[in-house]
Amino acid sequence: MAIKDKISQLRRLMKEYGLDAYIITGSDPHLSEYLPDYWKTRQWISGFTGSFGNVVVTHDKAGLWTDTRYFIQAENQLKDTGIDLYKLRVPNQIDIPTWLSSELAKGQKVGVDGFCIGVSEINILKEAFLAKNIEICTDVDLISQIWSNRPELPKGLIIEQPLELSGISRLEKLNLIRESMKSKCADYHLVGSLDDISWILNIRGRDIRFNPVAISYLLVSNNEAILFIDQEKISEELRIELTNLNVKIANYTDIVIKLKEIKEVSTFLIDPNRINYNVYKAIAGTHNIEEAENPSVLKKSIKNSTEIEGMKRACIKDGVALTKFWCWLENNINNKHTEINISDKLAQFRGEQENFVEESFNSIVAYKENAALPHYSATENNCAVIKPQGLLLIDSGGQYKDGTTDITRTMPQGPLSEEEINDYTLVLKGLINLSMLKFPKGTRGCNIDIMARKPLWDAGMDYGHGTGHGVGSFLNVHEGPQSIRQDLKDQAILPGMITSNEPGLYKEGRHGIRHENLILCVNDNTTEFGEFLKFETITMFYFDTSAINIDLLEEKEIEWLNKYHKEVYNRLSPFLDEYHSEWLKNKTRDI
Amino acid sequence: MAIKDKISQLRRLMKEYGLDAYIITGSDPHLSEYLPDYWKTRQWISGFTGSFGNVVVTHDKAGLWTDTRYFIQAENQLKDTGIDLYKLRVPNQIDIPTWLSSELAKGQKVGVDGFCIGVSEINILKEAFLAKNIEICTDVDLISQIWSNRPELPKGLIIEQPLELSGISRLEKLNLIRESMKSKCADYHLVGSLDDISWILNIRGRDIRFNPVAISYLLVSNNEAILFIDQEKISEELRIELTNLNVKIANYTDIVIKLKEIKEVSTFLIDPNRINYNVYKAIAGTHNIEEAENPSVLKKSIKNSTEIEGMKRACIKDGVALTKFWCWLENNINNKHTEINISDKLAQFRGEQENFVEESFNSIVAYKENAALPHYSATENNCAVIKPQGLLLIDSGGQYKDGTTDITRTMPQGPLSEEEINDYTLVLKGLINLSMLKFPKGTRGCNIDIMARKPLWDAGMDYGHGTGHGVGSFLNVHEGPQSIRQDLKDQAILPGMITSNEPGLYKEGRHGIRHENLILCVNDNTTEFGEFLKFETITMFYFDTSAINIDLLEEKEIEWLNKYHKEVYNRLSPFLDEYHSEWLKNKTRDI
Repeated sequence: MAIKDKISQLRRLMKEYGLDAYIITGSDPHLSEYLPDYWKTRQWISGFTGSFGNVVVTHDKAGLWTDTRYFIQAENQLKDTGIDLYKLRVPNQIDIPTWLSSELAKGQKVGVDGFCIGVSEINILKEAFLAKNIEICTDVDLISQIWSNRPELPKGLIIEQPLELSGISRLEKLNLIRESMKSKCADYHLVGSLDDISWILNIRGRDIRFNPVAISYLLVSNNEAILFIDQEKISEELRIELTNLNVKIANYTDIVIKLKEIKEVSTFLIDPNRINYNVYKAIAGTHNIEEAENPSVLKKSIKNSTEIEGMKRACIKDGVALTKFWCWLENNINNKHTEINISDKLAQFRGEQENFVEESFNSIVAYKENAALPHYSATENNCAVIKPQGLLLIDSGGQYKDGTTDITRTMPQGPLSEEEINDYTLVLKGLINLSMLKFPKGTRGCNIDIMARKPLWDAGMDYGHGTGHGVGSFLNVHEGPQSIRQDLKDQAILPGMITSNEPGLYKEGRHGIRHENLILCVNDNTTEFGEFLKFETITMFYFDTSAINIDLLEEKEIEWLNKYHKEVYNRLSPFLDEYHSEWLKNKTRDI
Repeated sequence: MAIKDKISQLRRLMKEYGLDAYIITGSDPHLSEYLPDYWKTRQWISGFTGSFGNVVVTHDKAGLWTDTRYFIQAENQLKDTGIDLYKLRVPNQIDIPTWLSSELAKGQKVGVDGFCIGVSEINILKEAFLAKNIEICTDVDLISQIWSNRPELPKGLIIEQPLELSGISRLEKLNLIRESMKSKCADYHLVGSLDDISWILNIRGRDIRFNPVAISYLLVSNNEAILFIDQEKISEELRIELTNLNVKIANYTDIVIKLKEIKEVSTFLIDPNRINYNVYKAIAGTHNIEEAENPSVLKKSIKNSTEIEGMKRACIKDGVALTKFWCWLENNINNKHTEINISDKLAQFRGEQENFVEESFNSIVAYKENAALPHYSATENNCAVIKPQGLLLIDSGGQYKDGTTDITRTMPQGPLSEEEINDYTLVLKGLINLSMLKFPKGTRGCNIDIMARKPLWDAGMDYGHGTGHGVGSFLNVHEGPQSIRQDLKDQAILPGMITSNEPGLYKEGRHGIRHENLILCVNDNTTEFGEFLKFETITMFYFDTSAINIDLLEEKEIEWLNKYHKEVYNRLSPFLDEYHSEWLKNKTRDI
């Protein structure tokens, strides 16, 4: 069905339901970053495949809202659909609440599937609609009625994350959650975010590509817990283990019914940013709600020693796969490989590693000016052939049972311009400066982000994305609560947190550079001024030193790089054959 | 009257009024940092003279709440008063709302003079008291009834800040305010903060020591304004000028009555952090309130070119006075001068400068280990004699009609230890690094604070105060909205803002170091990555290079220092006699 026909059908249904506007979010009931196909409603209705975007349809207009990352892609994909592009994160942006409250008349009605929108978003809409008394109806799912060949919900079996990889038993984790509930005087804690559920119960799923989670809700009370999930996904063995801990299994679709069965007025600990509105609504009328970040968010981000060892193993495996990959590419640079087929080759090398499960996100393989689009995604029909010149950026990662990786290298494929060399060096200088930082406990990401940017700022340059995001332990590659970016967020970087360190530089039509390592926060020392922390780089792979202008680096930066390269070689060479070991030795030579 | 007797009398009155607790804030009706004696109620009831603190008295307990800066001072001053010290800004602090809600029983009653507490503070109390249904009565002023010899309100005449110093006429400023009101659909804007009123009306007062402001409220509407002030303070000439702009004068004490006379339901733009609760209450019941930062706060912080020139002139005058002072001290180092009498001498040198009005705050003159208390204040009975050894820290400033200054220098008085030299150098290194920073427009203070701290962090050291505060233009030495500190504050550093740059280091029992310049934010250049800003240092005075360990400085830092010293000499020498000029030339020699 053409996009235009889909929208006509939607408008017909809107009339039937008395709706003047309908919002199709890019979310699932768990507000996930990556969705199973079943919930890709926004992609289905608009054709837009970016990771972030919302569609709104009124009787005479239709629009897609997305941010800077996707303007070019959205413009292309929306061509001839009748859907207009509305730009977010630009000066004077008009967001959906503002747009709707100006488009609609007093007393009109907006529909949205309340399972696929967060509590916070609904609250923002409600506030914007107050003046005009615009009503929001969240009990409609019009897309289901017109999406005839809608994909099914995935049915992958759950696997356990054993104690030797998780480090803490599910009983211990449930008790930690219950302690947090106690401190908030909560009788129940309802978890909707899939990575939190996976972490708490030490389970991993196969429901969503790149994210080893299972579609479910978890309701924890002081003496029991209920996991709402498609029961076919649970093996008999796991069911017994869970039952022994008084974790019961209920049908995924029974969540609202079961919540409504709780008659005694209770207090629910709920994270308004991590629960969908319809589930929230099932509680909010009857019970007290204590709003707070899911306690598992912070606990999950502070990796225990078992998880840290696993993450380090995963990084070494990644380094081994990348050594083989970049060596292969160097030997095959004249063979007209495209961005797409080298991406497949990289996946193949990762696939050879022990405990590899899948990639942790869609690899970004971007050659020369393509790399100037930070979230470039090559397609079969539109991808560059790698030639022996310029820079090739590859941002990729793996899900290993031991841990999750995320690494970017930008490698010269032949002669570089002076500008490319200087830019390459300044981005690397930023990465090194953040890597070397020592800071007092309590310091937040926004306080230290400048370390990665300053070499670029000095030269009047900058990059438009954050410097670092948290990374899960065989879980989502993007994980909170910490981040390293300019935005104000009141979360200190704490020992045990693993965060990416990924400064970049993008010059439209010319080149794009990003260098990315994972850094683990560890204790440094305690002085009369308090506790100090530092970072330990756990990603193990070389930066191509032939692209460096050494004059732009200070001595201590060169020292850091040489020391890092020595470690890379020492950690990876035991897993390499002689040929690759020699090749890597050459790449990791002192500068 | 002894403190104990005052508290007994207060408790007797509390009984009479049916109050179970009474709060004595450290504020005046304008929530000023510095108060006229009339409103120093907290100091009167407790004997505690610090700049921040609140007292709460119940029938069996009395407490003073203050922060880290004043713990030692408070402990001394509260001795034998029966008032306990409660520490704020420490882990597990118990603040007043929490303390009161645990001390009091259900339904009990707390009194506070609602004119001397902010709207935000009352809201916090109300929320804390909700569970126990504790009532707050704000229409009581018990201190007035027991403070028999209470000082009178000051009566200093208002002077005008002429256009050649203010740069923008009061009509233009009123129109700027009215534009902001319009954008918020406000009919009225009520201003309670004294520096905002002074800035808007281009007036300066003598009511409060160090702050050239006048006790008043200002009510701005679309076509007129009312200045509530002791009418005797206004000259006939100024009255006519104000009347010509439709700015009427009303009695200071009529504010509540006049507000209640506004019968038509209107919208008031009000800054809840800058208005006292009783004045707010006079409006809140009847009218709509649009809460936002006073528009003058941001506008005032962005100095116009006339103000910038004035501030630079003031800094040069300060530099001339300081040259004479430090030269005098160097020649008199063996004469057993004390912290107190050199402070007087410094004031005398400042006083010789054109347009000098008064000091901009109480000078901090702290020798050796005394300087380890960041807010040390010497007294006649307890002050050190300066000897020819160790470090002497002087943090001082002047109010000139041209502008306000704030400068700290820590100078060696003789031989220093290696530790003192290294610490001196690292603090200076931080000041230089922040001074040299180039950053994209939109960057906030919390994003760049690290520049001043990093040399200390590298050595496991830090300081417990912010790096920079805004400074007024012949107004308050502490001015918002920008600051340079770790705390999250969503205010970008913008061109025209003048902020202090004052890293420090404090080692208890040993020494304290602080270096402070004022830095003006200016445009640097615009690249394909956007607008970039930088700082221009406007304070003009040398740092003693004999205390520097040059090995700890990088080449570009040394270059910055030499260039700065050259400028200091060039700017100050035209105003110095030959002797002082030669002396300064020697101090500003290249290292």
